[in-house]
Amino acid sequence: MVRIDIVLYEGFDELDAIGPYEVFATAAGYGAGIEPRLVTLDGREVVVASHGLRVEPDGALPDPDDADRPDVVVVPGGGWNDRSEAGAWSEAEKGVIPEAAAAHHAAGATVASVCTGGMLLATAGLTDGRPAVTHASAIEALRESGAEVVDARVVDDGDLLTAGGVTSGPDLALHLVEREAGAAIAERVATTLEYDRGTVVRS
Amino acid sequence: MVRIDIVLYEGFDELDAIGPYEVFATAAGYGAGIEPRLVTLDGREVVVASHGLRVEPDGALPDPDDADRPDVVVVPGGGWNDRSEAGAWSEAEKGVIPEAAAAHHAAGATVASVCTGGMLLATAGLTDGRPAVTHASAIEALRESGAEVVDARVVDDGDLLTAGGVTSGPDLALHLVEREAGAAIAERVATTLEYDRGTVVRS
Repeated sequence: MVRIDIVLYEGFDELDAIGPYEVFATAAGYGAGIEPRLVTLDGREVVVASHGLRVEPDGALPDPDDADRPDVVVVPGGGWNDRSEAGAWSEAEKGVIPEAAAAHHAAGATVASVCTGGMLLATAGLTDGRPAVTHASAIEALRESGAEVVDARVVDDGDLLTAGGVTSGPDLALHLVEREAGAAIAERVATTLEYDRGTVVRS
Repeated sequence: MVRIDIVLYEGFDELDAIGPYEVFATAAGYGAGIEPRLVTLDGREVVVASHGLRVEPDGALPDPDDADRPDVVVVPGGGWNDRSEAGAWSEAEKGVIPEAAAAHHAAGATVASVCTGGMLLATAGLTDGRPAVTHASAIEALRESGAEVVDARVVDDGDLLTAGGVTSGPDLALHLVEREAGAAIAERVATTLEYDRGTVVRS
């Protein structure tokens, strides 16, 4: 079973997280052998997303040395461009999510981002010298951070996957499903969601 | 101000509702003069979606004769094909949401559906003899109900709008934003979401 934890925080962008979540959950229903969860760092009961959606998460992100630690950690974006009080910009300043992503990566997890979630991975140094993408509004910041910016919906660099803005989340998730469970299940999920998949660049 | 209420119910498909919600909320942030809300029929505190997401809605759908009644009622789908105990199939059997959609339509609201939410409008008789679309899994049922099935992501028949499966929700919402606030704001939202819009058929 591949455990996939999607890390929510105050001001996360709704679709950045829910798009991949629904792809993973649909794939799970088709026997993909994956288990997606919506988690927070502190296990809070409710999280308010960037457009006002109130979500009750599934639990807290385990420590990297816990037995139930995730195999994949997905970090959504949100509220970067306007430097929102709640959102990815604020989380980059705080550093807790970047630190957790780096710790899970060091422990062997694949880390993935959607939209400006990529800037939280960049803040952790995880994209330094590596091919990556983020939302258009943060592309220059990603480049300045030391990443090798690639123009694609999804960039697969092995244990580091990044996606472009908001609606590229399903593309990232379908690519992960394909990696973990094969192209047939990924295609079945895309058909169910009536989704035309975007481009993936593998490095 | 155009009030848009998206009707949630136990077993609604996450993206059917959240996709349009984020489009509307983003447009609202750009001055589109629209106000999206996530509502239920009974004002319950938490709704569990078809893939397990737990959402705290914004309130209850007003009665059609209330001053704060919505100008647009959006009905998502979910759980139709597998006749889930919770979902659109179950709601069609119960009839409460179809009845509410019909009452708001009779009171002058535009009604819109995403995915198998279209079957809830069909159950209400709202699609009888009119061009419409739904998720591929329910197309035959929609045709048998008396609708004139159209092959498109979005079908605009004036006060009745329907969309195809799951990921066509943003196409529906962007089209509504374009109708209510113009093409420039709709395009700006699509650019922000990095979304390639699908086809719209106007009857």
